Amino acid sequence: MTASIFTHPFLGPLFGDEEVASYFTAAADIEAMVAFETALAEAEAEFGLVESAELEAIRARMAEFAPDLGALAEGTARDGVVVPSLLKQLRTGLSETAAKALHKGATSQDVIDASLAMRMQGVSLVLDRRLAALTDALTRWSLEAGQRPVMAHTRMQAAKETRFSRKLAAWTDPLVRCRLKREAIAPQAFALRMGGAVGDRAGFGDRADRIAETVASRLGLYAAPSSLHSERDGLVELANWFSLVTGALGKLGQDAVLSLQNEVGELQLSGGGGSSAMPHKNNPVGAEILVTLARFNATLVSGMHQALVHENERSGAAWSLEWMILPQMAMAAAASTRTAADLLGNLSLADRQE
Amino acid sequence: MTASIFTHPFLGPLFGDEEVASYFTAAADIEAMVAFETALAEAEAEFGLVESAELEAIRARMAEFAPDLGALAEGTARDGVVVPSLLKQLRTGLSETAAKALHKGATSQDVIDASLAMRMQGVSLVLDRRLAALTDALTRWSLEAGQRPVMAHTRMQAAKETRFSRKLAAWTDPLVRCRLKREAIAPQAFALRMGGAVGDRAGFGDRADRIAETVASRLGLYAAPSSLHSERDGLVELANWFSLVTGALGKLGQDAVLSLQNEVGELQLSGGGGSSAMPHKNNPVGAEILVTLARFNATLVSGMHQALVHENERSGAAWSLEWMILPQMAMAAAASTRTAADLLGNLSLADRQE
Amino acid sequence: MTASIFTHPFLGPLFGDEEVASYFTAAADIEAMVAFETALAEAEAEFGLVESAELEAIRARMAEFAPDLGALAEGTARDGVVVPSLLKQLRTGLSETAAKALHKGATSQDVIDASLAMRMQGVSLVLDRRLAALTDALTRWSLEAGQRPVMAHTRMQAAKETRFSRKLAAWTDPLVRCRLKREAIAPQAFALRMGGAVGDRAGFGDRADRIAETVASRLGLYAAPSSLHSERDGLVELANWFSLVTGALGKLGQDAVLSLQNEVGELQLSGGGGSSAMPHKNNPVGAEILVTLARFNATLVSGMHQALVHENERSGAAWSLEWMILPQMAMAAAASTRTAADLLGNLSLADRQE
Amino acid sequence: MTASIFTHPFLGPLFGDEEVASYFTAAADIEAMVAFETALAEAEAEFGLVESAELEAIRARMAEFAPDLGALAEGTARDGVVVPSLLKQLRTGLSETAAKALHKGATSQDVIDASLAMRMQGVSLVLDRRLAALTDALTRWSLEAGQRPVMAHTRMQAAKETRFSRKLAAWTDPLVRCRLKREAIAPQAFALRMGGAVGDRAGFGDRADRIAETVASRLGLYAAPSSLHSERDGLVELANWFSLVTGALGKLGQDAVLSLQNEVGELQLSGGGGSSAMPHKNNPVGAEILVTLARFNATLVSGMHQALVHENERSGAAWSLEWMILPQMAMAAAASTRTAADLLGNLSLADRQE
Repeated sequence: MTASIFTHPFLGPLFGDEEVASYFTAAADIEAMVAFETALAEAEAEFGLVESAELEAIRARMAEFAPDLGALAEGTARDGVVVPSLLKQLRTGLSETAAKALHKGATSQDVIDASLAMRMQGVSLVLDRRLAALTDALTRWSLEAGQRPVMAHTRMQAAKETRFSRKLAAWTDPLVRCRLKREAIAPQAFALRMGGAVGDRAGFGDRADRIAETVASRLGLYAAPSSLHSERDGLVELANWFSLVTGALGKLGQDAVLSLQNEVGELQLSGGGGSSAMPHKNNPVGAEILVTLARFNATLVSGMHQALVHENERSGAAWSLEWMILPQMAMAAAASTRTAADLLGNLSLADRQE
Repeated sequence: MTASIFTHPFLGPLFGDEEVASYFTAAADIEAMVAFETALAEAEAEFGLVESAELEAIRARMAEFAPDLGALAEGTARDGVVVPSLLKQLRTGLSETAAKALHKGATSQDVIDASLAMRMQGVSLVLDRRLAALTDALTRWSLEAGQRPVMAHTRMQAAKETRFSRKLAAWTDPLVRCRLKREAIAPQAFALRMGGAVGDRAGFGDRADRIAETVASRLGLYAAPSSLHSERDGLVELANWFSLVTGALGKLGQDAVLSLQNEVGELQLSGGGGSSAMPHKNNPVGAEILVTLARFNATLVSGMHQALVHENERSGAAWSLEWMILPQMAMAAAASTRTAADLLGNLSLADRQE
Repeated sequence: MTASIFTHPFLGPLFGDEEVASYFTAAADIEAMVAFETALAEAEAEFGLVESAELEAIRARMAEFAPDLGALAEGTARDGVVVPSLLKQLRTGLSETAAKALHKGATSQDVIDASLAMRMQGVSLVLDRRLAALTDALTRWSLEAGQRPVMAHTRMQAAKETRFSRKLAAWTDPLVRCRLKREAIAPQAFALRMGGAVGDRAGFGDRADRIAETVASRLGLYAAPSSLHSERDGLVELANWFSLVTGALGKLGQDAVLSLQNEVGELQLSGGGGSSAMPHKNNPVGAEILVTLARFNATLVSGMHQALVHENERSGAAWSLEWMILPQMAMAAAASTRTAADLLGNLSLADRQE
Repeated sequence: MTASIFTHPFLGPLFGDEEVASYFTAAADIEAMVAFETALAEAEAEFGLVESAELEAIRARMAEFAPDLGALAEGTARDGVVVPSLLKQLRTGLSETAAKALHKGATSQDVIDASLAMRMQGVSLVLDRRLAALTDALTRWSLEAGQRPVMAHTRMQAAKETRFSRKLAAWTDPLVRCRLKREAIAPQAFALRMGGAVGDRAGFGDRADRIAETVASRLGLYAAPSSLHSERDGLVELANWFSLVTGALGKLGQDAVLSLQNEVGELQLSGGGGSSAMPHKNNPVGAEILVTLARFNATLVSGMHQALVHENERSGAAWSLEWMILPQMAMAAAASTRTAADLLGNLSLADRQE
């Protein structure tokens, strides 16, 4: 047991996911925050709030920036957000006017929420690609073996024979809907939340909305109203989506576990887990982990809904709660898609079914 | 404190909602289940599975049916579902052939899920109407007073002055999105889940899918694939939606509570709650209840996600869990919209703001 | 599906419990609140805050009191608590001095929390009696059949043969610990929370603590410090306890479901549930409901922990959240113990095991 | 945002805790597992199951063991538990008889649960020490300033003046109860769960219970019945405890946030957080984080209750869920106690109160 199961030296490969973990490193976060500051300066230059000389200085500084993580850690512990100390580092070596031009009109939440949206969008695309591969694999299986008779079970009792395709459809269709749903929630989940100090864009001048649209466009995010700082439903939608992914695959895992019971033997598994006490065992580890990850996200999603009660124009308490929960849900969804792909590669209908 | 706060003799008016409660009575449930059986017989007659004489007998019986609730209760306690004993009652007085024609090819879950979808769709439309009224009220307020300066608060500290319209937007926009989202989830949340004994429609013959589409159309529901019995993401979407509604209004309630603090006095409230010990108090009861309802649904939504792990072709355990949770979430959303409307009617900017 | 599953006309017998439901009626609540007011007047008379003539008038009025539920409902919707309107009714017909003597120094929360503690203590004793009966039944079964060999399953795979007693111990021991735990949490869970207007007992005079002890003693509750109004850990302990009960029985139910699978057949069940589509089925309804109730309470317990963040000297939002959650958890625990007793009466080792 | 907020390069100091994190490293886990294997061999030697020569070989090997983390990671991903590959490494260089003597009669769960219990006991003692320091600090503050008048607030409205000691009691008393509760749950939470392959100690011979007691004693754990593998209430009690700690401090944090509002100004804070946009701000970061951590644990505790539904003699799914949740709850409790100590050092009654 560990505090950080996703990146743990020996539990990580079971519960974690390297590809998606790369979106949640300090380096990836800082890179995205720096990209935001650059895009903001560029947009502000386009609309006349920042001089071109300052923009060039900012671009040069952003391009070569190497963070002092120790100082960022100290600043974050004090300020509750990394941005004030990050800005101090970013401004080092800039002229006074360039330093003022950097982050002009913006606030910490603009930076942090933008980095989150950028990285979460990337994660969602990784998951989307995996979901597509999973639905492909399931569809192929259905073409090959969908007509085989299997016993249906209702209320945990043998019910009637049906076709294997019925079972496969219940595993596949929710994944297809997850892919569609990703697109449906994207405009809210991957929106640029940029509002300045109190979420009214007062510091960006008359062209504030155009500046925000330009920043969004440069970062590949969706444009959004200024007040979005304190409206968190888009992130709850994303959390809900992660849990729909793990839930759909958790159902698949649970069904696989039940079908793999020695007494049932509807499915067979190659390469299951070994036991330290019982060498004959072939444990359906991956299928069980799918259930675990589903229940994990089903637990965590509640906290994201609690965070909807976001006090006033910015709630430190509710906002920080998202930081503790949402990335974990993304990681669990990543581990789930990775594990499901492995599991499907090792599952087959038991020979007696042929 | 009570086991049934929504319909409690004296707590009901605070936490409940009469209009929406009417969708969750035994009578409403039975009426919807009878409507399903009628629509099924009609559709089966249309496609030649049921003779017209049997259909007429069924229609006549359905039209005059009066349930024996005691016997239904006894049957439900035994079977885990009301349908077997309901069918026994419905078949009383029917000829043997008409009795067989009733519920032909169907299973308990077809009936119960259809009744749920019909009633939940009705509830969602009630809520949609109320959300529209709330957004209207907020928009009117913004037109009247949106330009007034108010103090913005970030991290629970006075930050900078902004316009009241910024605060109103953060209350209004999520409600507008909730209305759009209701439409987006409708095809899944209000789908006809009709699959027969094991969710493959085997008992409905060659025209099974057409029959299902016809039933859906007659009941005002969306058509769906046969395997949907064991895919519960549509209901999780609905639960998520109820919690987005209560969460958006919970944020409004929390902001109102904070603005109504005596020391802050940004808003003023007419007709708050009295105290048994402190006659001077004017408690922001409605605003507090909005927070309560948000946290309640944020808690319950987790259980609906847990229920995604639905074993095999029908899980008694996971399915029953939905019954315990989803109606409560609907009731909380109803109470929240009702309470918010009352609250908005009693709130105004404090005089010193004018 | 219903908003009030525990008392629903036909779902109630499956999910509810008549004996424990009786503690959560409006009548039981009012009776307990009236008992508090009587005990308070008696204690205050004992310590000289109330004259004996007033006490007699109060006693007489309390003894004959019949509530006007409609007026209580109206008052509760306005005040957020029933007490102001209840007091108004209770004071009807009392002289001015007796009316003032009633509820002297007390506040709404004193009354409501006392009623809750009294009734929850009663509920806990009902559950304790049932837990004792369950452990007796399990122990008898172990004496009779504990030596029988059964297959142990780990990670959902057949592992090694063991004795049935090992399985029975895992069902029994947690119930024994639940009984011990009830005693351990009683002083906090069934404490008299009596603090007056702001939880400092300022309105009870110099002998405030003695008065509180006397009231506690008269009501069969535990004495507690004055500030307990805003310290809710005792109620979280109770919620945790309800969920430990349902969790222990949920594990029993899950094991029973798995052992009752047709393909496993380790256990056999008499009197399972019937199906509307498959007459051959014998569904393990009770065992499934035990799992459902466990997951229900596991969901709800989270909300009670959220309510620990209780603002200042009394939080309307957090307090009301308890009202929505805790009684339901008690009802689920009651249904669970009732269902488990029924299930154990119908379960036996399958004949092939003999 | 990060997947591992507790150990993140720059978020760690805000949300994490170095001292308690040290219990959740791979190294600490392996050390504890090796200690279990050593203690087991010693106990088995004492009762004649292991020869003294083998014991010496085992001791020597355990003392010098250096793990190959890569191989452990590979094995864990396959087996779902680290123990089979750990044993393979531990057995390297041992004679065949010594290799057989190592882990004799034991199973993976024995090792992993023992390591967990040992480390969680250590964590709980760290927290207990900190809770003692917090109650001391609060008590000192009460002695110094408890008589000062402050305004009490009920339902978020100014109510009546009270003494500051009333507020301090509501912060202190739950912490005192947490300390007592730690002792009450210790025999279950820090029990040695040792049952062998299927939890019946069949592989430990006739003296199995004595061996288990000896191992427990050597590891500083509590002895427990053999069937405890599949009874997880002791760990739920621990999770509940972590959440009671964060909940009590979350209430303190919420009260501090409310008292520190500029408009209220009952308390004052030195060294609050800075803003990137508003240099005048002094954000109550620590107090907010206490609320965040409380809501985080209140969310997670639900998953531990879900894990009570532990299938059969060992559930891979439910057991793994504990691994994902419980250490995080410990870390959140650690961060909460650390943050509360810092906060109390920086809080004082505002000057106008003096």
